[in-house]
Amino acid sequence: MIRRDLQVDTHGRLKHFLTIEGLGSELLLRILDTAESFAGVGDRAVKKVPLLRGKTIVNLFFEPSTRTLTTFELAAKRLSADVLNINVGASSTTKGETLLDTLRTLEAMQCDMFVVRHAQSGAASFIARHTAPHISVVNGGDGRHAHPTQALLDLFTIRRHKGVLQGLRIAIVGDIANSRVARSQIHALTAVGVAEIRVVAPKTLIPSGVDSLGVRVFYRLTEGLRDVDVIMMLRLQKERMQGAVLPSTHEYFHFYGLTEERLSLAKPDAIVMHPGPLNRGVEIESEVADGAQSVILEQVRYGIAVRMAVMALTLGSHASRERSEP
Amino acid sequence: MIRRDLQVDTHGRLKHFLTIEGLGSELLLRILDTAESFAGVGDRAVKKVPLLRGKTIVNLFFEPSTRTLTTFELAAKRLSADVLNINVGASSTTKGETLLDTLRTLEAMQCDMFVVRHAQSGAASFIARHTAPHISVVNGGDGRHAHPTQALLDLFTIRRHKGVLQGLRIAIVGDIANSRVARSQIHALTAVGVAEIRVVAPKTLIPSGVDSLGVRVFYRLTEGLRDVDVIMMLRLQKERMQGAVLPSTHEYFHFYGLTEERLSLAKPDAIVMHPGPLNRGVEIESEVADGAQSVILEQVRYGIAVRMAVMALTLGSHASRERSEP
Amino acid sequence: MIRRDLQVDTHGRLKHFLTIEGLGSELLLRILDTAESFAGVGDRAVKKVPLLRGKTIVNLFFEPSTRTLTTFELAAKRLSADVLNINVGASSTTKGETLLDTLRTLEAMQCDMFVVRHAQSGAASFIARHTAPHISVVNGGDGRHAHPTQALLDLFTIRRHKGVLQGLRIAIVGDIANSRVARSQIHALTAVGVAEIRVVAPKTLIPSGVDSLGVRVFYRLTEGLRDVDVIMMLRLQKERMQGAVLPSTHEYFHFYGLTEERLSLAKPDAIVMHPGPLNRGVEIESEVADGAQSVILEQVRYGIAVRMAVMALTLGSHASRERSEP
Repeated sequence: MIRRDLQVDTHGRLKHFLTIEGLGSELLLRILDTAESFAGVGDRAVKKVPLLRGKTIVNLFFEPSTRTLTTFELAAKRLSADVLNINVGASSTTKGETLLDTLRTLEAMQCDMFVVRHAQSGAASFIARHTAPHISVVNGGDGRHAHPTQALLDLFTIRRHKGVLQGLRIAIVGDIANSRVARSQIHALTAVGVAEIRVVAPKTLIPSGVDSLGVRVFYRLTEGLRDVDVIMMLRLQKERMQGAVLPSTHEYFHFYGLTEERLSLAKPDAIVMHPGPLNRGVEIESEVADGAQSVILEQVRYGIAVRMAVMALTLGSHASRERSEP
Repeated sequence: MIRRDLQVDTHGRLKHFLTIEGLGSELLLRILDTAESFAGVGDRAVKKVPLLRGKTIVNLFFEPSTRTLTTFELAAKRLSADVLNINVGASSTTKGETLLDTLRTLEAMQCDMFVVRHAQSGAASFIARHTAPHISVVNGGDGRHAHPTQALLDLFTIRRHKGVLQGLRIAIVGDIANSRVARSQIHALTAVGVAEIRVVAPKTLIPSGVDSLGVRVFYRLTEGLRDVDVIMMLRLQKERMQGAVLPSTHEYFHFYGLTEERLSLAKPDAIVMHPGPLNRGVEIESEVADGAQSVILEQVRYGIAVRMAVMALTLGSHASRERSEP
Repeated sequence: MIRRDLQVDTHGRLKHFLTIEGLGSELLLRILDTAESFAGVGDRAVKKVPLLRGKTIVNLFFEPSTRTLTTFELAAKRLSADVLNINVGASSTTKGETLLDTLRTLEAMQCDMFVVRHAQSGAASFIARHTAPHISVVNGGDGRHAHPTQALLDLFTIRRHKGVLQGLRIAIVGDIANSRVARSQIHALTAVGVAEIRVVAPKTLIPSGVDSLGVRVFYRLTEGLRDVDVIMMLRLQKERMQGAVLPSTHEYFHFYGLTEERLSLAKPDAIVMHPGPLNRGVEIESEVADGAQSVILEQVRYGIAVRMAVMALTLGSHASRERSEP
């Protein structure tokens, strides 16, 4: 559990953005409101605002992820920041430099933000705890732990479609056990007070102790989808198909794939979400992914606005602290 | 054959730039005239115009090509656009995402242009047909099919040196059969009405049905060069040297390499062109490549201006369509 | 030996920055003074000056070096230049293009500066001798020959701490024989007239003929450190540990590692420097690297300002020559 004061300063402002846990409804909604103010930037002839001009944002990627890198790079450029992409796997660590020395070096170059992507859970928080006070750290996905900007853009998309978040019944379907996305989503949905969160998956993909998160567990998709407002599909890591955990992608689809027929069990105006990239025919059939109830591409679109909001808020918080330094 | 209306809208404006085929002389000359207006930008102290500020241009490269990437990246930056370089080979396709899903995702990020480089013929047109209306697609070279910005910069270079294009006699020398450059050049030269297009190559490198393109075929270089105004050399792919198609680079040079002696068969003010990179001593000897009649480096230079023109025209066309949207 | 007039024009202005050798004290101090004017840029809310707006700076890296690339990219962006990163190893050379043709091509694109990193000594000077007059070349490290921006930032850091350079006694410790950093440092310190330069290393890591550089050689660290004002540690290339040159990193540390106890042999206000990345526990112990006398992170910080100064001065020199062209 990350202490709230690692992410939030004494004035309630966001210093780092590492996990949804402990942020609280008010702060999450403030980020969403800020994202609203950026949502129109992509529609303008000049898709740019000068807010972070002259800031240096470093995408510090310890594992490759073109999609995540692209969204953060785009968000930074639309805020007019300068961006450095550093693939750490391919660089200094091969020269035997420690992670802390890499951080110290980038800090000394007076960078303002690290967007961290790492295969190990807790990496972003570790970096936030050990970095200089003038740096903001944003978690771009760490191991199985968290993918908090993904959870935020999910909230944003739901709010855009449903107006309010409180009364909703939401099903998260798929590999709950191994998904950083699911963990972050559950925390986010809980924080903003949705009525009911369901997790739907085969037993082997439900983490032990999930009840303590306040969710209802369903092993059958047909039951889990009944009367929900929102269906959040997870990407099935095909690696898990090898071995004993799951029999085959074909069989997975048979029991847990989202089809039009199953979708009809949800409320008529239910929306379908997916963090991407899609495994068509595995966790979702194309008719649904491309259908009228799918908001999958809106998630991508709002993802830029949400990341702009996180960058603007964290760096804004640092900016005010800087002014009080000598 | 790509339908004209895929590239040109009902007002005669360029939407995509995929192939020279079907564009027509007037439109090609309009692009050249626009390129003229950018040709001086590289000479200024500030090599930049604000025309595409706040646009997002994505270099979507499915095969690596540093040279092509560099020219498009530079053209985009000199137009003040934001540029994302995405090496698709190394990214989402490894996660099993389909090409269409990759496109949908980038569209949702509200990118404005894809510059597509692909090993497969027709890839750029496929993408143009399947992309959202707010995106312009520019072909940066697809398989053996087309390399239309190369053909345009060739036209631009010829016009700069010869004043008019119509009366000229032009020889294209080398691997006609496997060259996307040659195909695009023949279409471009035909469209603007040059007097005579010759192709010069060994039989094994002449594609069947080449006569239907309205060119004259020569198997001997000494005959093909006689009295031409322009010599367009092609790069010999050394891969083709293995196997039965060609005996050796040494023998190729013996019969088809451009030497000073052979150059003297052309008109005294003939210019020598090459798309690069050069195989010195294979298709061209250094004395000619670096000689007074060579305009090879001007081609590179004008290539930036021509790519700026294509970007400005296609995005300008989209900009006016955007204004009519809600 | 590089001739002075390759680097300095007839008006005494810097055209290229290839090596410290032959530059002279006055010019070196002018670069340091220019760097002073940039040293505060990183502290501003907008870490940018518009000095090189619209210039195209190419990082031409023939060997990978994330750290060096990052510092030059950052320096260029803080000067508002456009930056292209070209990994030459992975590109045109694989297509058989010669280095000179690669240069000609980039020149034709009207780039303004090449920052060259190359595994071979003399590569940057070779490129400077063979490039077009409108291009400035900056050496980002070539083989064992030179790393002149590193030496400059060392001077800058020393001057910041000691005020003047002349009276100082300085020890350079480590792999003198194989270090481009050490060579550049000795030239820089000699040029500005420090009182005494010592090199401290085992015999196998002292290059023959080092005496001719005007330095004092010490084989024992405890003697070499006595009463010095500045300790410049070098990074030990671990590759050298294999084979007969050095027994083990453990034994190296035993004899040549900088410990707090040994540091106490230097003057009480001596500063400790290291070019990074650190091999903690090999050439330096953590207590010293992170201690009160360490200025290692300041070196990184000032490295940006020094590289900004080199870029601004060389391109400024070219700018004035451009104005006199037609």
